[in-house]
Amino acid sequence: MAPETRDIMSKPAVVLLSGGLDSATTVAIARADGFDVHALSINYGQRHRFELDAAIRVAQASAVKSHRIISVDLAAIGGSALTDTIAVPLDRTNEAIRHGVPITYVPARNTILLALALGYAEVLSAADLFIGVNAIDYSGYPDCRPEFIDAFTRLANLATKAGTEGTISFQIHAPLIEWSKADIIRRGIELGVDYSQTHSCYAPDQQGTACGHCDACLLRLKGFAEAGLQDPLKYQTTAP
Amino acid sequence: MAPETRDIMSKPAVVLLSGGLDSATTVAIARADGFDVHALSINYGQRHRFELDAAIRVAQASAVKSHRIISVDLAAIGGSALTDTIAVPLDRTNEAIRHGVPITYVPARNTILLALALGYAEVLSAADLFIGVNAIDYSGYPDCRPEFIDAFTRLANLATKAGTEGTISFQIHAPLIEWSKADIIRRGIELGVDYSQTHSCYAPDQQGTACGHCDACLLRLKGFAEAGLQDPLKYQTTAP
Repeated sequence: MAPETRDIMSKPAVVLLSGGLDSATTVAIARADGFDVHALSINYGQRHRFELDAAIRVAQASAVKSHRIISVDLAAIGGSALTDTIAVPLDRTNEAIRHGVPITYVPARNTILLALALGYAEVLSAADLFIGVNAIDYSGYPDCRPEFIDAFTRLANLATKAGTEGTISFQIHAPLIEWSKADIIRRGIELGVDYSQTHSCYAPDQQGTACGHCDACLLRLKGFAEAGLQDPLKYQTTAP
Repeated sequence: MAPETRDIMSKPAVVLLSGGLDSATTVAIARADGFDVHALSINYGQRHRFELDAAIRVAQASAVKSHRIISVDLAAIGGSALTDTIAVPLDRTNEAIRHGVPITYVPARNTILLALALGYAEVLSAADLFIGVNAIDYSGYPDCRPEFIDAFTRLANLATKAGTEGTISFQIHAPLIEWSKADIIRRGIELGVDYSQTHSCYAPDQQGTACGHCDACLLRLKGFAEAGLQDPLKYQTTAP
């Protein structure tokens, strides 16, 4: 295809970008699939803003078409260790992490994130939405499962002018949904993702340095270990 | 039932309250159905805040259990005459209002509102959500139709910890969905709704006085006329 015809063929996609390892990889996958990535980050009243800072760094490094941040004050409704002052559990076993819904579960979070992404996609006339959910590491998050993604896809095409009029058939891509953390990291490295720019930790120190002990740090470190790679991130202490 | 057992039997419900005529009526219906009403208003970057002021007045007058306002910056994604600077059409015929998707359509608005209400309902352990959508007056809003409500109900029970674990079966109530505006007003008057406290206008003046000419004013005035009642609201000019 000649360069001058490329714009006509551009495929815009809205990609939810939290600033974590999974969403950074998802941006890279969407780009590799030929999409013009419009990254969307949601400032939902997280207890710290290091994740959002990471989203900004990742967006800049990933040559996205645009990056928007929408603020929504989920702390107003409470109910999660990610927005409330509930303690984040540390040094849990992989079994404990995998089973049951974690206290870091934010009620209806992915429904809210996808709803906002859908509104933005309709404004951009983008049929494709990407979300970096994963059903493997945290089996306890109900809104990370394929059946949730399918139900949202169905809703999206009923809920919108574009979907109803048939001008767009919305598709929700969750490319990581069945991958292990090691698979995700391996694919991201292949695609050139710089994981030193991402943030995963639920309990960072004042400078944003990862704790190495919360569920997110443990899963991340285990993923790098299983991929036979070194996590480029700096941690507060040597990980267990 | 003895008064002292009532608290144990209390049924909490989250009711979306915009401050308009329909949502004020929906609050009254939920209360009449025996629910403890937790009103939820969304500040989504409306061009004016008269609607939100009306929501606060209606909540106070309706003896709700609680009223929360969540801010979400939908203006950041644009795409609607309600959040952008697109002109609001005036003095349209009823036919023109009914057909096609109006430019006041906010992309994915009701999906976003219900997603936030769902998160709040899960925090409150409330199985019931109420939304005052109506499929009659604006046939062009895709997210006001029964099939949208059904799809969201299905999603809600897949998307949440409570729904997945079976501790709650979420139900989305849209009691006005098949009613005419006159039906809504008649029922509201029966239930004691004070419509002078509501706000419907898309193009109010600086003091918040309704224009009497936008689609929302025209439908409201027509509804009162068909119900054989007088709208207690003050308008800038005599309505056409």
